Amino acid sequence: MSVPLPAPLTDLNRLCVHTITTKPWPLERAADEYARAGVRGISVWRDTLLGRDITREGELLRAHGLTVVSLCRGGFFAHADEAGRREAHYDNRLAIDQAAALGAPLVVLVCGALPGQPLGRSRDQIRRGIEDLLPHAEQNQVRLAIEPLHPMYADSRSAINTLAQANDLAIAIGSASVGVAVDVYHLWWDPDLQIQILRAGQADKLFAFHVCDWKTPTEDLLLDRGIPGEGCIEIRRIRGWVEQAGFHGFNEVEIFSKRHWEGDQTAYLERIVQAYRGHV
Amino acid sequence: MSVPLPAPLTDLNRLCVHTITTKPWPLERAADEYARAGVRGISVWRDTLLGRDITREGELLRAHGLTVVSLCRGGFFAHADEAGRREAHYDNRLAIDQAAALGAPLVVLVCGALPGQPLGRSRDQIRRGIEDLLPHAEQNQVRLAIEPLHPMYADSRSAINTLAQANDLAIAIGSASVGVAVDVYHLWWDPDLQIQILRAGQADKLFAFHVCDWKTPTEDLLLDRGIPGEGCIEIRRIRGWVEQAGFHGFNEVEIFSKRHWEGDQTAYLERIVQAYRGHV
Repeated sequence: MSVPLPAPLTDLNRLCVHTITTKPWPLERAADEYARAGVRGISVWRDTLLGRDITREGELLRAHGLTVVSLCRGGFFAHADEAGRREAHYDNRLAIDQAAALGAPLVVLVCGALPGQPLGRSRDQIRRGIEDLLPHAEQNQVRLAIEPLHPMYADSRSAINTLAQANDLAIAIGSASVGVAVDVYHLWWDPDLQIQILRAGQADKLFAFHVCDWKTPTEDLLLDRGIPGEGCIEIRRIRGWVEQAGFHGFNEVEIFSKRHWEGDQTAYLERIVQAYRGHV
Repeated sequence: MSVPLPAPLTDLNRLCVHTITTKPWPLERAADEYARAGVRGISVWRDTLLGRDITREGELLRAHGLTVVSLCRGGFFAHADEAGRREAHYDNRLAIDQAAALGAPLVVLVCGALPGQPLGRSRDQIRRGIEDLLPHAEQNQVRLAIEPLHPMYADSRSAINTLAQANDLAIAIGSASVGVAVDVYHLWWDPDLQIQILRAGQADKLFAFHVCDWKTPTEDLLLDRGIPGEGCIEIRRIRGWVEQAGFHGFNEVEIFSKRHWEGDQTAYLERIVQAYRGHV
């Protein structure tokens, strides 16, 4: 099942950047800079909304010509007790409210895990957590994307670690409002990636596509992601699979990097735009 | 398919320690200390054999009442050019010769990966590399265990990252001399682990079982493994699956830990023995 490598992206119409990528910038500065650099989409991390009038922030982003692609992030459904799960439920309702106010059509879910709690139990809690949230999401016309996380986060961040699992879960829940987010950083190693991307597309579950790169060596499990081209992921090939599966939404650049956050963010954003043309 | 949690191990008859676990000790010291602590098996890392008469080292280990369980490690079949692959082939032949001289019935294979080389190409090279090695292994009555490595090592250490892949490969090669090594550190997160362990057992491919623990947080991708009980892996449950699959060989403690290597190794070995009774 060989898919030809897609042509390079010659325009930026589908380039989205996550605010976490340029973490030092407040949302308003990110909006200015992204617009100036030609970025067309923005995925908003909730930390940037603290103390803001969210509806007005959404208007501001659109006034900059930016499409709000998603709100990051909800989830963390796994907890040892009912009180923790209830708290997560209300925080996730809040995320949906924030997405609706911002005009973001999608909330990305990092599903959660608890060190020492069996993965199977966390997975049950995740499914129940999403199902409990569903009426509020549907009512607000906000979709939910289950993002499988790299297996190195199975201890404390997500018990959903392959696209097969995320697909299984989204399909089992059976709502048009629940799908998956494919992030190359988490999934590039998976021998079943291509087939599971196709499956997600055929089931109308392919809601989002995130890119960055895996550096060799990776010096920090969390904060050492690379700009596309800095690492070993065949990002363009995976984009080809995603497009073959029928996805033509934004290519979202989501990079956590202590190293890049320490440098000049404008120059860094410029590098990201070049990398997008050269490697995505 | 629920398997009852096995009873704790009340004796040390199946406790094996990898020499890398107590890296500061030369082989002779490890033999002394392991025997004194009641350890019954030893897996020998090749660095400890440098400059030694390997046949005599094997005799020394057996004189200490130690069973030589495996030699670690061969593999690294993925290379950009034929010269690299040829070099790997000869190094792997040497590993087999060393295993035969030492009296180790098994060589563990870390299969290799090359940053920037497509995983599919590495996997082809791995299969060819093992097949080319097979006549020498069979001739020397040394078995080969494909060890799937955690997906966080897919860039540079192994393109074989799940037990399903390792099983597929071992079964496709189709020699009684090629099987798999199950290491809980690499595989604990996998939702298919139980079924793939059973599959390995039914195919007579379950050659080795390695244990240690996954710490939260993990501060180094390579050298921050935990003693059983220091982390979140359900080691005993996985041992239950392995035993249900028909494996009753050694439980091999293999820990890479900068932190533990810096401490007193005798006290550390004592902790390992306690952890074996309490958590394996």
